[in-house]
Amino acid sequence: MDRQADIGLVGLGTMGAALSLNIAEKGFDIAVWNRKSDRPHEFRKQAGELGARIHPADTLEDLVASLSTPRAIILMIPSGDPVDDMIAKLRPLLDADDLIIDAGNANFHDTIRRTADSGGPFLGMGVSGGEEGARHGPSIMGGGKREHWDRVAPILEAISAKYEGAPCAAWMGESGAGHFVKTVHNGIEYADMQMIAETYGILRDGHGMSAPDIAPVFAGWNEGVLQSYLVEISAKVAAATDAATGGPLLEVIVDAAGQKGTGRWTVIEAQHLAAPVPAIEAAVVARNLSARREERATGESLFGAAPKPLPEGALEPALLEEALICGKIMCYAQGFTMIAAAARQFGWTLDLPAIARVWREGCIIRSAMLNDMADALAEDPDRNLLFAPFFAAHVKRTQHALREVVSMATAHGLAVPALSSGLAYFDQMRTARGTANMIQGQRDFFGLHGFARLDDGTTGQHGPWADAAANPDDTSGKQG
Amino acid sequence: MDRQADIGLVGLGTMGAALSLNIAEKGFDIAVWNRKSDRPHEFRKQAGELGARIHPADTLEDLVASLSTPRAIILMIPSGDPVDDMIAKLRPLLDADDLIIDAGNANFHDTIRRTADSGGPFLGMGVSGGEEGARHGPSIMGGGKREHWDRVAPILEAISAKYEGAPCAAWMGESGAGHFVKTVHNGIEYADMQMIAETYGILRDGHGMSAPDIAPVFAGWNEGVLQSYLVEISAKVAAATDAATGGPLLEVIVDAAGQKGTGRWTVIEAQHLAAPVPAIEAAVVARNLSARREERATGESLFGAAPKPLPEGALEPALLEEALICGKIMCYAQGFTMIAAAARQFGWTLDLPAIARVWREGCIIRSAMLNDMADALAEDPDRNLLFAPFFAAHVKRTQHALREVVSMATAHGLAVPALSSGLAYFDQMRTARGTANMIQGQRDFFGLHGFARLDDGTTGQHGPWADAAANPDDTSGKQG
Repeated sequence: MDRQADIGLVGLGTMGAALSLNIAEKGFDIAVWNRKSDRPHEFRKQAGELGARIHPADTLEDLVASLSTPRAIILMIPSGDPVDDMIAKLRPLLDADDLIIDAGNANFHDTIRRTADSGGPFLGMGVSGGEEGARHGPSIMGGGKREHWDRVAPILEAISAKYEGAPCAAWMGESGAGHFVKTVHNGIEYADMQMIAETYGILRDGHGMSAPDIAPVFAGWNEGVLQSYLVEISAKVAAATDAATGGPLLEVIVDAAGQKGTGRWTVIEAQHLAAPVPAIEAAVVARNLSARREERATGESLFGAAPKPLPEGALEPALLEEALICGKIMCYAQGFTMIAAAARQFGWTLDLPAIARVWREGCIIRSAMLNDMADALAEDPDRNLLFAPFFAAHVKRTQHALREVVSMATAHGLAVPALSSGLAYFDQMRTARGTANMIQGQRDFFGLHGFARLDDGTTGQHGPWADAAANPDDTSGKQG
Repeated sequence: MDRQADIGLVGLGTMGAALSLNIAEKGFDIAVWNRKSDRPHEFRKQAGELGARIHPADTLEDLVASLSTPRAIILMIPSGDPVDDMIAKLRPLLDADDLIIDAGNANFHDTIRRTADSGGPFLGMGVSGGEEGARHGPSIMGGGKREHWDRVAPILEAISAKYEGAPCAAWMGESGAGHFVKTVHNGIEYADMQMIAETYGILRDGHGMSAPDIAPVFAGWNEGVLQSYLVEISAKVAAATDAATGGPLLEVIVDAAGQKGTGRWTVIEAQHLAAPVPAIEAAVVARNLSARREERATGESLFGAAPKPLPEGALEPALLEEALICGKIMCYAQGFTMIAAAARQFGWTLDLPAIARVWREGCIIRSAMLNDMADALAEDPDRNLLFAPFFAAHVKRTQHALREVVSMATAHGLAVPALSSGLAYFDQMRTARGTANMIQGQRDFFGLHGFARLDDGTTGQHGPWADAAANPDDTSGKQG
């Protein structure tokens, strides 16, 4: 090899290959290794003139030997055990100060563990944007020691997406913070996709529109407040023609959604943090239920199809657009609230506006609205996004549309679980006097859990059912 | 001590004391120990004539010495570390075959670990029914080795609640199964309570009814299909007078619900099992949001109170009753589906009809409907409860009411997140052709995840956006 490479990469799958080409294109030399030993050479050949900056390594030893020191190696391999196995293979070959970067979809708890235990410098890095993003500019969320991030920041910022010139790559915080932020990103992505699918359902089943008719509706929304990658590609998906039949592609796709776990991780972590993310929960449930196709067919034959067609003039696309804006704000408000809760819980210096800025370009949830979110969070990162003047104004304008959509879709059997959960979140968050006094009354009745009084603020009060003989200073084993 | 006690108990808190009195009353001798050393003697004195069967132990050594062999000791102490600490203290004092029974609200994963590692026979036992249940007949869910359960079954069946003579105490399955079933019980309890609270909110805010006016509505429901402990006590809570003010107690209780973790555990475990429990998720979210009183007040001042009052004649109590029946069926269908998923996942021999039978009396969610559920599950434990003829008939009759309630409450800003999630679950479960084809299209567009085709059933298909240069045999690092 003529010269030392600037960085190494393990795993030439879809994402690893795209990221390598991106790195080479930005003028960095990259050494690559793959478990299939012929793949690096083949990859270099396919890379055309970029191949000059791509250094195929036959063995991990070759890979290590080809890197300038201190070394940095990106892993883009399946998450879980393969990452631990690769670290165990690499670390003995490396110097003490060499850096390993896990760029896969790791569970952030694993990243925290690896940062502490993997025997050397380690960064966990969330990369979003799919293959296209990886190739031409992903959104990059780094976590680990700041000094380790700074060492590779010039490469990562160079390859990342740019929003008006600003790189969408940033250090999110200490150990695990990068993968945590990526996880919540994916959770929000689930909810955003589900809300779009729900508006699709209303257009298809409520209005009887075909996919090609629906495509321009989404394309139109993409010109306004909803401008976003997900709305843009929804238009393209709806517009696509199926090569086999010549009909609309969307209409031959089976309605059973897969998932790779990050939505689930988001919900689990939200539970640990006591952070409410009902829109994400609804989206994960919807994917799970979508997979139960046989049961759903049984349900339809047993209960009959829902009375879906809407009356003339109801839930027109312009109203759906407003509803989706409102639902989307609820979804992001939940996501950022969860991130704030995690910062407190894990002692991370998570910079909420910086996170919104990194998401403005490159990643799957990139959208015009994220720039406004960055501004709103910069004003006051501790305030629920819902209460920021810019978004509060949007919500005041659009909540009636969301209300009409949820109410009428529900009445017509069109399932809108994520939009509906977004509205219920809003209605709970804007109701000073809720109904949990009934729950506290029940809990005190059956478990003597005690309640607080509105009038004098005293806590630990009991209703007349409280047995004076109970032993109130020992709460062991109470039920509820 | 004149004679050896039949069983021992550690922890004379509210629940432990009640359970001890119950055991003594059923004719068993029980030795009791508490961390406050004067408590056992005081407890015996307070027990009146039952004191003759209560043997206070000053030390754990005394406790062990006072028991007939093989010994059995119930722990009714706070869950978590205290249980591990107590096992560590007790085990060295015990013979190899002596049995420790954790009757607290343990996380079932801890119970699985303790069953394997605690150095001797161990049962995890869920006990539901609050203080009143513990005193006069709880519902008891045991998990561990069947032979260990059988050893104490005569005592546990004697003290348990009875449904038409049948004890509501049963072995649920191997290690951890008892506490798992108790966890799901509590998750269902959360959802059931939340749905009741939502109907309370409609009566209070939609109809402007006072608590004393609402009480007879719940009391009336308790005479019909909804007959259940939770509806019964809701009537009592609504009817209660506040001693301090002479006004309705419910109206001075702060609307911020506490929680002790079992609802959250249910949701987390449901995520691991990919079992959809949206009603429970909505209930946990509602409790979390209820605790954010300041934010909710900010929300109301910013967005204004919801237009709550309902039009004359809308959502009358009889309609709410039907809606609650339908919502409740959705909630239990989700809970039992989750239990079935856990049985497959953990290799437990969970007997679903037996679980429903154990819940018919003694526990917080006891209700008339659980007997019908036991029958329906006995017909076919693998079938979603929703599809059982008895419940399908109820659902056909009541789903329109639930639909009207959710639709109209939503339109009027009355938050009904659990009822609404129940209806969305139903509408998804009875829709053969859902909207996840859009999600699959999006996922293929941005991550080449592939989709299945409706027409020929082929999987791993891609849209025209798929890049032929991609390396489809390696899915490492794909996004989504």
